[in-house]
Amino acid sequence: MSSIHTDMAVEAHEYFSEKNKVPQGVKMNKRVFGGLCYTKISITDEEGEKYLEKPMGTYITLEAENLRGSDRESYKQSRNFLAKEIEMLLEKNNISPTDPVLVIGLGNWDITPDALGPKTVSSLFVSRHLFEHLPESMTENIRPVCALSPGVLGTTGIETLEIVKGITQRVNPKCVIAIDALVARSIKRLGTSLQISDSGINPGSGVGNHRKELSKETLGVPVISIGVPTVVDAATITENAFEGSVEILKESDNSNLFKMLSTLSSEDRKRLFSVALSEMTEDLIVTPKDVDEMISDLSEVIAAALNTGLHSKDVKKLM
Amino acid sequence: MSSIHTDMAVEAHEYFSEKNKVPQGVKMNKRVFGGLCYTKISITDEEGEKYLEKPMGTYITLEAENLRGSDRESYKQSRNFLAKEIEMLLEKNNISPTDPVLVIGLGNWDITPDALGPKTVSSLFVSRHLFEHLPESMTENIRPVCALSPGVLGTTGIETLEIVKGITQRVNPKCVIAIDALVARSIKRLGTSLQISDSGINPGSGVGNHRKELSKETLGVPVISIGVPTVVDAATITENAFEGSVEILKESDNSNLFKMLSTLSSEDRKRLFSVALSEMTEDLIVTPKDVDEMISDLSEVIAAALNTGLHSKDVKKLM
Amino acid sequence: MSSIHTDMAVEAHEYFSEKNKVPQGVKMNKRVFGGLCYTKISITDEEGEKYLEKPMGTYITLEAENLRGSDRESYKQSRNFLAKEIEMLLEKNNISPTDPVLVIGLGNWDITPDALGPKTVSSLFVSRHLFEHLPESMTENIRPVCALSPGVLGTTGIETLEIVKGITQRVNPKCVIAIDALVARSIKRLGTSLQISDSGINPGSGVGNHRKELSKETLGVPVISIGVPTVVDAATITENAFEGSVEILKESDNSNLFKMLSTLSSEDRKRLFSVALSEMTEDLIVTPKDVDEMISDLSEVIAAALNTGLHSKDVKKLM
Amino acid sequence: MSSIHTDMAVEAHEYFSEKNKVPQGVKMNKRVFGGLCYTKISITDEEGEKYLEKPMGTYITLEAENLRGSDRESYKQSRNFLAKEIEMLLEKNNISPTDPVLVIGLGNWDITPDALGPKTVSSLFVSRHLFEHLPESMTENIRPVCALSPGVLGTTGIETLEIVKGITQRVNPKCVIAIDALVARSIKRLGTSLQISDSGINPGSGVGNHRKELSKETLGVPVISIGVPTVVDAATITENAFEGSVEILKESDNSNLFKMLSTLSSEDRKRLFSVALSEMTEDLIVTPKDVDEMISDLSEVIAAALNTGLHSKDVKKLM
Repeated sequence: MSSIHTDMAVEAHEYFSEKNKVPQGVKMNKRVFGGLCYTKISITDEEGEKYLEKPMGTYITLEAENLRGSDRESYKQSRNFLAKEIEMLLEKNNISPTDPVLVIGLGNWDITPDALGPKTVSSLFVSRHLFEHLPESMTENIRPVCALSPGVLGTTGIETLEIVKGITQRVNPKCVIAIDALVARSIKRLGTSLQISDSGINPGSGVGNHRKELSKETLGVPVISIGVPTVVDAATITENAFEGSVEILKESDNSNLFKMLSTLSSEDRKRLFSVALSEMTEDLIVTPKDVDEMISDLSEVIAAALNTGLHSKDVKKLM
Repeated sequence: MSSIHTDMAVEAHEYFSEKNKVPQGVKMNKRVFGGLCYTKISITDEEGEKYLEKPMGTYITLEAENLRGSDRESYKQSRNFLAKEIEMLLEKNNISPTDPVLVIGLGNWDITPDALGPKTVSSLFVSRHLFEHLPESMTENIRPVCALSPGVLGTTGIETLEIVKGITQRVNPKCVIAIDALVARSIKRLGTSLQISDSGINPGSGVGNHRKELSKETLGVPVISIGVPTVVDAATITENAFEGSVEILKESDNSNLFKMLSTLSSEDRKRLFSVALSEMTEDLIVTPKDVDEMISDLSEVIAAALNTGLHSKDVKKLM
Repeated sequence: MSSIHTDMAVEAHEYFSEKNKVPQGVKMNKRVFGGLCYTKISITDEEGEKYLEKPMGTYITLEAENLRGSDRESYKQSRNFLAKEIEMLLEKNNISPTDPVLVIGLGNWDITPDALGPKTVSSLFVSRHLFEHLPESMTENIRPVCALSPGVLGTTGIETLEIVKGITQRVNPKCVIAIDALVARSIKRLGTSLQISDSGINPGSGVGNHRKELSKETLGVPVISIGVPTVVDAATITENAFEGSVEILKESDNSNLFKMLSTLSSEDRKRLFSVALSEMTEDLIVTPKDVDEMISDLSEVIAAALNTGLHSKDVKKLM
Repeated sequence: MSSIHTDMAVEAHEYFSEKNKVPQGVKMNKRVFGGLCYTKISITDEEGEKYLEKPMGTYITLEAENLRGSDRESYKQSRNFLAKEIEMLLEKNNISPTDPVLVIGLGNWDITPDALGPKTVSSLFVSRHLFEHLPESMTENIRPVCALSPGVLGTTGIETLEIVKGITQRVNPKCVIAIDALVARSIKRLGTSLQISDSGINPGSGVGNHRKELSKETLGVPVISIGVPTVVDAATITENAFEGSVEILKESDNSNLFKMLSTLSSEDRKRLFSVALSEMTEDLIVTPKDVDEMISDLSEVIAAALNTGLHSKDVKKLM
């Protein structure tokens, strides 16, 4: 099991680079412009995989106070930025503008913070069926786009990977794009950051289970994943608070308390939070109060970015 | 295209038997007990198919004022009745108590009157994955149940049949059970009647399109469908009203108006409603005001009936 | 009871002006610009009230294909137009920019097509409490805005008027603005037109019941109402279809059918639809399939227009 | 500000009785039968108020693993228990079976864990209006029940107390019953416990602000409150985890870590969590994953209990 509860490569980097030197196999490059912070992390070898506890690939993170785009300018900024990144990742993976794409909305309709994927799919413009039903409007330079929200293992009884395999074998997309809600370490990132990656994605858990992940190995085509952190692990909250406190105390000179805490072995710390980690069942989530609105805003942004990045203007006329 | 807008065999029978003699290939048998009206219609040959404009098979209709079970007794009555019918249809189709079953929730999450299928699936107890994840609790006499809500062509770009085929090829169920919202002719039947059939079902339309229907021919395993009428076609409303009026006028002796109307050729009648039929786009639906509550009640009843009819008591302990 | 089922003055005008000459007490003036159709109907005397079956006052109707503003330009157009009309009606009623305003969201949260009012209120920016809780940010030239969604008689057991009176007596607004979903005659107007009026509004019914309406007489302050048609009466659908058919048949020369129908006395017509009118209970509604999305779009537009029209820029900073 | 984040008297008692001796003015009595744990806490003087940081009155807590009643037996048990308590509290406060009652659904429709009150009101059977609209069915021995969901200060701009005062002055109930979602300290209590009290309730916060609470002093009639904890304060989670850890470590003999921690002055502990307490904004909530389902189940139970406890069988016929 991974030693930190986050799906965000940028948080894994923050966390581990504090402790140990960053190896060759991990590259990071960060830019800030406008209200946006853009971070690109590349994991290029197994050492890098072990270090960040994430599979090889490129992880792009976009952070912005108003990522969800409640005002029009932010909305356009987020949408256009994401659209551009999608186009670039498609190109990087040699997907042509007319290659068919399958979009998968991961997560559970019935649990608000987990509904990002299904909600995005329901706002998406699909075109694959128009070739049969609206042939006259289909010129040759058009990309067939189709989509599915497979649900989660607990409600289907079927591994998501099995469902997606079943569909891909019939639909033969050249690329799969998966949308999912993610787990973050920092509450500040909830709804304010977004990760795009071509390293595959593991439905329903941050734990690397290569057997069940949607990836090029398992599906035979490139997998681009787009995720937004919507919850923080309750145990993480506790740990954050503790670490944060130690920091604070460091400042206050001659703090007896700090001396004590700073001498704790990491093993002692683990024990210190054993209870927290045991009591915080996975049935418990920490999430923003306005999560319903947050999910509906962000699914709009992502769907709009996909509609912009995947379709040629011939199709846009039909939207 | 079918000459009447209904998915209910019982309404087709009402409508056509008024006009022409019922042929050999159509059998009907009706019983009333308690508050329930039970009707069984069997279509046994092609003449029957043409007559009722429905594929061969058995159509069982359950009608009850309080079918949705807002009070506990009606709830139990509906659930148990439906559970028994499901068991009988499984047996009739030689499905053993341990044969795997795939439940498909047809329809669109985002359109309330069309959400019966997906909502039923989300209340269903699935067991297939427990064999891997909870083996100790799985005895040998247990049925693997799995489920999927594939969405609709307009939001996926993939024919529902294709999706279901893809899944069945991986999951190999011995039977598919499809849940869907239906179109009725009579507003009185909305939410108060339920149809179970083993004749296959056509996602999203009453029009018989054998190429795309979920059926034994297309899927290779028996298909049991469970449907509840939730909308009435707006054009039908108009026609009903007109027909109804003519009936009324018949009573009022020496009605000049009646004489006129009764002499209308059916061709004239079609012309009379050409406008209605053209203006009533499929984007317009006629539905009960409390359709949200109706759908949630009925999906509970159907899910409970499936949980009762599909699972042995060993599994029920885990629910 | 009114002889036509519509809350729209513009439809009442269409309907009655076909049959009888428009009296002195009714003025209409219509303009089309951009994609917008703007109609202003004034009822200035009792004869006018009887003629249109609506209370005296000004009724402004805005019609636009994309009134709901699914693209940004239409959104701005609808919002700004409505904001300007609100400002003008406030001025016409001598409400100053700092007079307190109470916004009432009429209708039922739980019934989608009736939820326009409550949804608008939930997107509204209220400022009245900030004077106490955020005094520093409140300059003198600010309007206190407060809002309430009182619910409907069936779920509260209290007449809406009683609730609103109770609040106004404590809050002392200088003006009440009521938002409600309306009934239209033409399905083409559902979600594509909007009526603003200062004639008062009757919660939950088009039937003029002066005892319970929200109006200057009953509340002691001007009442501005903003409504959008979201449903069509099922009986109206039938009648429309019939009338429409007769029109069509008129074209087709020597239509025997037309001769018959056109000779029907209006009394005969009423009898013809007696059944329709009786069978179509008020529990049945005709509404667009995408009504959920329609309501959420339109409530956004109206809330944005109120936020623009009611608040000075000092408050807008806080939104 | 209160030193612990809980609305539950039973948790306040647990917490403070560990630290200091329980004073005269606080009585507790606890019974367990069936799967139920019943606790009655009475605060009878000012010393008691200070000790538990709650206003004088009776606080009854019901705890049960399946309080929400997902199976029928638990549902009946919860409903009947709560109905009996309501009847007893009404009697204790000299409310006769025909005295009018006003039910207030506190909280915010749009935030799932806060929607318990409004959802309960929307499932409630109200009778007050039937005296006018259905007089024949109203015998003399009937209680007029009405209800309102006033919304929250942030969306109305009006103090809830002001709204409720405005209504009570027009409706003149003999008793007000307020339903609200509560904050608990222990995640184990979320959705598994329920508090009934006659001490008044403070909309939207556990902080005792007597100026704005709904109580006999402010409304002039007895106020019975029914609440269910649906969220835990994020800072509390952290504290719990820490305290819990210390407990655990106590067991492990010669734990160096424990010795350190146990010597922390309470002031040091406060500093230790200063960060947690600052970072955990009130915009962040800790809630069960299935909170949507939890709220809908519990609002059903509470509405059913009110329908049972408030209405005579003459009215029940109309439900």
